[in-house]
Amino acid sequence: LSQLRDIGEDALIERLIALVPRDMAPAAGPGDDCAVVDPGPEHSSLVLLKTDALVGHVHFLPETPARAVGWKAIARVVSDFAAMGGKPDRFLVTIALPAETEVAWAEDLYRGMGDCLRAFGAVLAGGESSSVPIGSAPVISIAATGSVERSKLVLRSTGKSSDALLVTGLLGGSIHGKHLNFTPRIKESDWLVSNYKPTAMMDVSDGLAKDLPRLAAASGCGWVIDRAAVPCTPGVGIDAALGDGEDFELLFSFGPERVEALLADWASVFPDLPLTLIGQLTPVDEGNSLSGGWDHFGNLGLR
Amino acid sequence: LSQLRDIGEDALIERLIALVPRDMAPAAGPGDDCAVVDPGPEHSSLVLLKTDALVGHVHFLPETPARAVGWKAIARVVSDFAAMGGKPDRFLVTIALPAETEVAWAEDLYRGMGDCLRAFGAVLAGGESSSVPIGSAPVISIAATGSVERSKLVLRSTGKSSDALLVTGLLGGSIHGKHLNFTPRIKESDWLVSNYKPTAMMDVSDGLAKDLPRLAAASGCGWVIDRAAVPCTPGVGIDAALGDGEDFELLFSFGPERVEALLADWASVFPDLPLTLIGQLTPVDEGNSLSGGWDHFGNLGLR
Repeated sequence: LSQLRDIGEDALIERLIALVPRDMAPAAGPGDDCAVVDPGPEHSSLVLLKTDALVGHVHFLPETPARAVGWKAIARVVSDFAAMGGKPDRFLVTIALPAETEVAWAEDLYRGMGDCLRAFGAVLAGGESSSVPIGSAPVISIAATGSVERSKLVLRSTGKSSDALLVTGLLGGSIHGKHLNFTPRIKESDWLVSNYKPTAMMDVSDGLAKDLPRLAAASGCGWVIDRAAVPCTPGVGIDAALGDGEDFELLFSFGPERVEALLADWASVFPDLPLTLIGQLTPVDEGNSLSGGWDHFGNLGLR
Repeated sequence: LSQLRDIGEDALIERLIALVPRDMAPAAGPGDDCAVVDPGPEHSSLVLLKTDALVGHVHFLPETPARAVGWKAIARVVSDFAAMGGKPDRFLVTIALPAETEVAWAEDLYRGMGDCLRAFGAVLAGGESSSVPIGSAPVISIAATGSVERSKLVLRSTGKSSDALLVTGLLGGSIHGKHLNFTPRIKESDWLVSNYKPTAMMDVSDGLAKDLPRLAAASGCGWVIDRAAVPCTPGVGIDAALGDGEDFELLFSFGPERVEALLADWASVFPDLPLTLIGQLTPVDEGNSLSGGWDHFGNLGLR
């Protein structure tokens, strides 16, 4: 009998969701950053739904400050709303903690969640708590609703061959701190979808090497990147920039004809955050194959 | 330093939610079965939000059939929508499982979730998966949206002194099987709110002894019950009926003048499910005190 360790997360999810009834008319396919619900043509905004979880020893350590864990728990979900061109609204928080957890730890966790909710104009709407057996890892599970103006929604499945590929910020080395205190790119996403709407977008949570092939595959495209162009965090090599993950930057595709204008405007609006052209989408049968993920990053230049 | 084990769940939640921004205009207070969002006066329906979690060794055992765990995970949340007079719509499922979990177990889990989603006309809209460290308990966290017609919403905070208290079904002994395969009272709730709208309602998840004082407190009332009237599962004593929990029956208050008509109509519409008058709400300074929970059930008769 096979175990979860024997099959990848993407393959597991595909097998599992085939077993349950699905939304018949989803405004975004399964596998996008958020589920999108269309409340009807009389509404100018769509509803976004997202769930996520932080697990002790997987996403944070016993010595990680609880306030930082709380920020991260909310910020990861906010980042998913940014990836669709939207914003967060209401959060549900489920905590499953060992009974020996200090009350002060739980309070700091909620203070950190409060910091992030306040920073992005969101609120707590409900929650649930449970104990876990002694010795079990704590789990913090977050669900949230968000919204996006109908005209601003960006999926990851709508990129086109020859679109430019761009990424915000610097990649890699998140483990040295950024994975806990990163700023979700809500402001930047809102500016993009209002002024230079991407053809496809997602946030980089598992590393460019895993996430770019997902965006390309969802869009029915191949891709090429220029390794030398990838913006690396100072002190971090290209392999770490591609593979570390938890960058929570925006990766998006954009029509090639206006890329220069976008880059110039971006630099004046967000002078402290780089925006970098790293490659382009290609026909599906060109560029990188999708199997094997980041091993295939090795030997391609920007065409 | 105090630990979570030292303070009750209700007190913990109260301390934690004070640390985060809350919905300024909630249509239901914190502590009700679901959060209620009013999408604006032009809408005839309100949005319900709910989160819940099942933890291994707490809510189910390693030998519990996974398909039953899946049914229970969804059905608990469906029961909360029934408690508000509503129905379930879209579910988000987060699984945090050890890597050594059999794929077949996870598939059976989703088959059980699918059984319950189909039974109540709901769908899966999204999800997330994570590993937990070896030896950690599995956690299945569920979040869902539901809806309720504006005129049918029932809160737990709107009961009135002298209202009758009624409960559906039989209480106690759920551990012998019902906690896994119970039927959420959606159909019964819909009939009630359409024909004999309760003044306050909740589902009995922690046992009548814990849940009735919550309904009474939320309504600013005291309460009395007739121990002899409490409908016990065959073979189960009154203490178990009051304290076992996981009954997932409806507990509600109702104006005393139409109770006889309600009971007569109920018996003809739902001949297989008892509806029992067990007591009444009182002024807050009469009836049972709220502290100490079910110890106070001992010595009161129906007035």
